[in-house]
Amino acid sequence: MVPRYSRPAMAAIWQPENRYRIWWDIEVFAAEAMGETGMIPAEDAQKISAAREGWAIEPIDVEAIDKIESVTKHDVIAFLTWAGEKLGPERRWLHQGMTSSDVLDTALAVQLTQATDLLLADLDELLQVLRRRAEEHKLTPTIGRSHGIHAEPVTFGLKLAQAYAEFDRNRMRLRAARAEVATCAISGAVGTFANIDPRIEEHVAKRLGLLPEATSTQVIPRDRHAMFFATLGVIASSVERLAVEIRHLQRTEVLEAEEYFAPGQKGSSAMPHKRNPVLTENLTGLARVVRGAVTPALENVALWHERDISHSSVERFIGPDATITLDFALSRLTQVVDKLLVYPERMQKNIDRMGGLVHSQRILLALTQAGLSREESYAIVQRNAMKVWESDGSLSLLELLKGDPEVTARLSPEKLEESFDLGYHLKHVDTIFERVFGRS
Amino acid sequence: MVPRYSRPAMAAIWQPENRYRIWWDIEVFAAEAMGETGMIPAEDAQKISAAREGWAIEPIDVEAIDKIESVTKHDVIAFLTWAGEKLGPERRWLHQGMTSSDVLDTALAVQLTQATDLLLADLDELLQVLRRRAEEHKLTPTIGRSHGIHAEPVTFGLKLAQAYAEFDRNRMRLRAARAEVATCAISGAVGTFANIDPRIEEHVAKRLGLLPEATSTQVIPRDRHAMFFATLGVIASSVERLAVEIRHLQRTEVLEAEEYFAPGQKGSSAMPHKRNPVLTENLTGLARVVRGAVTPALENVALWHERDISHSSVERFIGPDATITLDFALSRLTQVVDKLLVYPERMQKNIDRMGGLVHSQRILLALTQAGLSREESYAIVQRNAMKVWESDGSLSLLELLKGDPEVTARLSPEKLEESFDLGYHLKHVDTIFERVFGRS
Amino acid sequence: MVPRYSRPAMAAIWQPENRYRIWWDIEVFAAEAMGETGMIPAEDAQKISAAREGWAIEPIDVEAIDKIESVTKHDVIAFLTWAGEKLGPERRWLHQGMTSSDVLDTALAVQLTQATDLLLADLDELLQVLRRRAEEHKLTPTIGRSHGIHAEPVTFGLKLAQAYAEFDRNRMRLRAARAEVATCAISGAVGTFANIDPRIEEHVAKRLGLLPEATSTQVIPRDRHAMFFATLGVIASSVERLAVEIRHLQRTEVLEAEEYFAPGQKGSSAMPHKRNPVLTENLTGLARVVRGAVTPALENVALWHERDISHSSVERFIGPDATITLDFALSRLTQVVDKLLVYPERMQKNIDRMGGLVHSQRILLALTQAGLSREESYAIVQRNAMKVWESDGSLSLLELLKGDPEVTARLSPEKLEESFDLGYHLKHVDTIFERVFGRS
Amino acid sequence: MVPRYSRPAMAAIWQPENRYRIWWDIEVFAAEAMGETGMIPAEDAQKISAAREGWAIEPIDVEAIDKIESVTKHDVIAFLTWAGEKLGPERRWLHQGMTSSDVLDTALAVQLTQATDLLLADLDELLQVLRRRAEEHKLTPTIGRSHGIHAEPVTFGLKLAQAYAEFDRNRMRLRAARAEVATCAISGAVGTFANIDPRIEEHVAKRLGLLPEATSTQVIPRDRHAMFFATLGVIASSVERLAVEIRHLQRTEVLEAEEYFAPGQKGSSAMPHKRNPVLTENLTGLARVVRGAVTPALENVALWHERDISHSSVERFIGPDATITLDFALSRLTQVVDKLLVYPERMQKNIDRMGGLVHSQRILLALTQAGLSREESYAIVQRNAMKVWESDGSLSLLELLKGDPEVTARLSPEKLEESFDLGYHLKHVDTIFERVFGRS
Repeated sequence: MVPRYSRPAMAAIWQPENRYRIWWDIEVFAAEAMGETGMIPAEDAQKISAAREGWAIEPIDVEAIDKIESVTKHDVIAFLTWAGEKLGPERRWLHQGMTSSDVLDTALAVQLTQATDLLLADLDELLQVLRRRAEEHKLTPTIGRSHGIHAEPVTFGLKLAQAYAEFDRNRMRLRAARAEVATCAISGAVGTFANIDPRIEEHVAKRLGLLPEATSTQVIPRDRHAMFFATLGVIASSVERLAVEIRHLQRTEVLEAEEYFAPGQKGSSAMPHKRNPVLTENLTGLARVVRGAVTPALENVALWHERDISHSSVERFIGPDATITLDFALSRLTQVVDKLLVYPERMQKNIDRMGGLVHSQRILLALTQAGLSREESYAIVQRNAMKVWESDGSLSLLELLKGDPEVTARLSPEKLEESFDLGYHLKHVDTIFERVFGRS
Repeated sequence: MVPRYSRPAMAAIWQPENRYRIWWDIEVFAAEAMGETGMIPAEDAQKISAAREGWAIEPIDVEAIDKIESVTKHDVIAFLTWAGEKLGPERRWLHQGMTSSDVLDTALAVQLTQATDLLLADLDELLQVLRRRAEEHKLTPTIGRSHGIHAEPVTFGLKLAQAYAEFDRNRMRLRAARAEVATCAISGAVGTFANIDPRIEEHVAKRLGLLPEATSTQVIPRDRHAMFFATLGVIASSVERLAVEIRHLQRTEVLEAEEYFAPGQKGSSAMPHKRNPVLTENLTGLARVVRGAVTPALENVALWHERDISHSSVERFIGPDATITLDFALSRLTQVVDKLLVYPERMQKNIDRMGGLVHSQRILLALTQAGLSREESYAIVQRNAMKVWESDGSLSLLELLKGDPEVTARLSPEKLEESFDLGYHLKHVDTIFERVFGRS
Repeated sequence: MVPRYSRPAMAAIWQPENRYRIWWDIEVFAAEAMGETGMIPAEDAQKISAAREGWAIEPIDVEAIDKIESVTKHDVIAFLTWAGEKLGPERRWLHQGMTSSDVLDTALAVQLTQATDLLLADLDELLQVLRRRAEEHKLTPTIGRSHGIHAEPVTFGLKLAQAYAEFDRNRMRLRAARAEVATCAISGAVGTFANIDPRIEEHVAKRLGLLPEATSTQVIPRDRHAMFFATLGVIASSVERLAVEIRHLQRTEVLEAEEYFAPGQKGSSAMPHKRNPVLTENLTGLARVVRGAVTPALENVALWHERDISHSSVERFIGPDATITLDFALSRLTQVVDKLLVYPERMQKNIDRMGGLVHSQRILLALTQAGLSREESYAIVQRNAMKVWESDGSLSLLELLKGDPEVTARLSPEKLEESFDLGYHLKHVDTIFERVFGRS
Repeated sequence: MVPRYSRPAMAAIWQPENRYRIWWDIEVFAAEAMGETGMIPAEDAQKISAAREGWAIEPIDVEAIDKIESVTKHDVIAFLTWAGEKLGPERRWLHQGMTSSDVLDTALAVQLTQATDLLLADLDELLQVLRRRAEEHKLTPTIGRSHGIHAEPVTFGLKLAQAYAEFDRNRMRLRAARAEVATCAISGAVGTFANIDPRIEEHVAKRLGLLPEATSTQVIPRDRHAMFFATLGVIASSVERLAVEIRHLQRTEVLEAEEYFAPGQKGSSAMPHKRNPVLTENLTGLARVVRGAVTPALENVALWHERDISHSSVERFIGPDATITLDFALSRLTQVVDKLLVYPERMQKNIDRMGGLVHSQRILLALTQAGLSREESYAIVQRNAMKVWESDGSLSLLELLKGDPEVTARLSPEKLEESFDLGYHLKHVDTIFERVFGRS
């Protein structure tokens, strides 16, 4: 976790305080169920449950627990010792028949679902902003580019609608990923429930908003976590895609959009002309960081036999890093899109900079429909287009065509002008917007 | 693609013949829709459609198309030239208003769904075999191991049930991954439908069993493919997990299970005692190969603007490699599990090799319930356990306890023997099996 | 291996014919040494050695060996059977005391060094071309960009010199990587030389141009191969860097350089204005493919005990794929650089498009040196620069400054003009070229 | 950075205090050179240089700098403001003609070389311990295993010698990696030295123990860092390899070695028989973490044009994480090997557990040398070996052979016994040790 790329709510999920609070919940909920099933005296279970009420508002004394751990060398035992001090003799029932992993893995499930809920909220905000800006620029013409080269016109709203559709898919994926990790295991040393009834697990799961793991082996199987981190990797890649788009649009020669730059702000102490897309460049890097969690998570799947502990150190890194970083990245991306400076005039200027060449395909089709063969039409259009090309856009394709007798013999000036109409390219924008936003 | 790790049906999906056949379908279905929408003459559309009937049974002349491509330097144009030769003048309507990527990306979607259907069938077979063997060994006791060290007993059927649950999750994931890539794009140069009506796309999608892509940008967005390959990476990691389990079980000192070894077969020309788990070792390696596709697929997401073509070369590798290899791996794993030699006697012998130490926890609990403090109980059990430990399992914990007056004062011989009962650990096997197989 | 991304010489290294030829060499060289050390009769060794002379020119009958393998299920034994048929009774000494891995791993070492030699030659060609083009454009001014935004001038030759320096480092790395894998192991079943004298290994190593592996364990340790593939991954990333630079330079709005486009060539059948950087986009994708080999190679290191065979399937993929693809990529990159169309006028036009803003830092320094405080100077420069900025470069900073009394009071017109001299930025180009090319 | 997997000396390198101290050094050394070259007044340069003497012993007030940064939003400027306050008017010469990246990238180079020096020391310690334990067990026989299955005898010292050879290679690689990143860039906004003489760079480089970067582009090229992190990934994989070996050796059924376990220590509160290889399992996970840095580092290479800032966030994670974690891992591995409990008796017992089958190859050879055909010999040995195999090692191959007339007709009892001599397998241990340790 790098503080500058972290936001408080997500960071808090990974603080010891939160982890201990979840552990405490697990132990208390387990005791409740043990009371109900008769494994422990009902009144003791109630005492344990009642005690939680009072503490819910108290801070956890992390330092005290750490101090105990430095003696016991065992985090769960240290916590239980500390928690037990707050109880009477009913403390003996805490953790009865449970194994440390029951607490650790279930707590991780809670942390991951808490983290996912923040990420889902992040996505919702991003989607909202994308939609607003997409509608704002629904009919703002801009050049579509394939291979970085001008192709045919699109609208800036379409670009954002495409991003919306992509992040909408990511929301769906993230929900599935949440379900992957939202399971509870209270099944004992090797997952056989030898010393603890499956009903305890069912109760704890319910209280925590999780599902019981169908079958665990001391640990919850790590294919679940692999799928979770892989999904974060995909979302991060989508963040990169939109960030790269904005970086491209802000290039000096393109300058169709820019990250927000406050009036009076200085881009560089030395060079007053500098306004750099540093936020989206940063997002590009953060995407690499989140993706970096995917392979370790995949390597964590093949634990030996009923479990080994090699996954644990990996998760201490990637659990916080991937979620905190993605949360930060989604939020930053939302801000960037929200305040993005968009320059429609420059977009139009860029469309026009090739002297109307982007309409060449339509003339080709019009000549063909007027009876010429495709080869003849191509030759005529190319002949004129090359002049425009060589003039670096200072000549106009439309004007040249209007002066070419082979063209004018077949196409009227009105027909020609119509063929240079941007509207032709925008006629299905409504359909696409309906497809994208009708769904949400 | 490495021939020795490939199976014919999956390999065929990636052969030129199949790709061309799909291209042909796309062009014909598009022509059908153009006829219906009046973009092209209805009777010409019918001729194109009719021609397909005849050809469906003919092989595609890949060599002829290659020859044309060596001139045109463009695969789609080469194909269209070849296909056009089989038509009359109606050939001019083929590919009308479409762009090459419409064909290429939609065809890839078809190939990926075909590949996924084979993988789903592979998973079904694996699940069937896992279930059969799990039920066969539902109550075959074996030692559960955490950290490679004996923990407490489980059953061999439980191990397989856990694998079943994992691959059942993988089946669900693979279905979701199939939906990710099962979309169709016939939307023109930059996805605006400028020269082709969205209804064409809808028709082609329907005929191919795909959904129309909500919005494409000449290409279908690559977050879909990233999610697809990430899912294959998770499944490969599950293959590795089960393969590693079997490799462990076959180790000379453990030998609780073995890959099938035919009577009369030689393990090594030099060392008659060698019977190596080479199939599961091979699966471990193949898992690395499939996982190797995940990062390139994630890097493919951030194409520039409306598209660049950097993803294409990557997909020419990972498309065939990841699906063919995973298909081979799943099939091999199914065969290994199907014919796995299981040695219940050796499992029992291994359980017993520590002189009953695996039951130490129960004695501890029994003494506590008989009124001793946890500390006193622990000391008594440990005292006896250490003797067993030091004897390398030649002494019996049960016999030692029966001779320890501090124990016998509290626990009857019957109670002691009962505490060494394996059944205690197996009492919830039914519950777990219901959870796992009740679902399927 | 994807045929379209492969070149014949590199592909041949990975053909069975080459592998068998190397196996044969290993067996013959081993027999030679056995003859010398008295392990086998000297005259038999000579017969084996002599036989090789004759065969060196004959093709290997791969089909015949495959046929034998389909019976023996063992590739090395199949080869030995086939090879033995060409000998008299001295065939019994072939492979004496050796283990299959002795042959397989040593042969892989030979293949990898052969492949590396081709890659080194590729790098040499690329370096030569980079140097020639760098010198050609040593003093061609072009704008330097940080964050995609104009910064200060550089030369196009400097860009290429930087690429040269990077690939020169890669050459050094590749040489180190070659040394990593250039070892020979003929050490028997678990590397103890129990049945074969270490002198055999020394002799075979010498004959093959390898070094004896200090200690092997049936297999050559895989940290060597991991380092090798990691190095290829770094080189591929450098390929990507230069490819991305060219893709940027070819963008419609930038167009400072272009991949070669033959006169008369068509960029698109529909859009005559399209000239796409498809070769460098392809290189970007191929870089991902080569990098994809790195993680599997790292995962191959931790083989179990003296060896397991999980690395083998991985290497059957990444051995050919990574070397063939990198060979193709380096060659393609060389061609792209060799024939790159460079547009110095457009470079100058781009430098000028911001009305001289790229020189703002120098005026700032000049005013400071003329006695103004940095704050005052900054305000004066910024005041004028903003006008230029808002004019989208149609105003000239130099002209504005010449008309600003606060400026002219301190700086003469000559001094001002001098401050807009590009030469200021190019004065150390010689130094840098010496640093870069003086080394090679 | 996860505190529990970090050691103080390495962590300190990545603390702000150290970074600022290096920045300070860079600025002072640059001023020295500017004084010498006449760029700034010599006496001012001396004042700046002198001031450093006094401060070298003072702590850096990180909080004060942070406070300034919260206003300036620029870390280097914040530092310069703070540092300037400690100087008189000569402060104006600080950072003259330099760009922030000059400081940042050169400082990173210093941090990485500092980190590498610690890692090299770690490797030295590990090598020393490996060598000591290797020599201690040079002739301790243990079974060699391929595929997890008994093959032929080796010694435990050989296993450690092999690890030594591997880490010795890693030391060489790490030295090369250090050289990769040990370069200095003080070359200005786009690396042209427009505003700063190359001699400044040369001086700073010399004072910091670095080499001048041949040509930088505002930033030091990232192929260097990619190579660095790739090397750490290889070393981490070697850590994993040895860790996995130890985990295998400690398995209940094998138990040839164990991580140190203090007398009186408890392995588990519930199960007194548990002694888990948790340190080496942890190392396995940490290896995944370090390897996780490799791909992001490779993706950092292709920065746009003269630079973008996407690499920066990545390096804020992987710089500390990969070096701190590898430092911790190497140190932990050293401790594990240092105190490893080795059980030669158990090793012998395991060798013997197959009733002498591990010697079968020698009998085969002996019978062949006594005149039988290989086929006859094989049949005789196999006949006896299978009986031993089926007895699970309770029968002795040697005894059976002594009772087989077909054997005794050819081999005397003495010859037979000699063939079961372990010494046969150990005769070249000296040679191998010389090869491995003679080098160091």
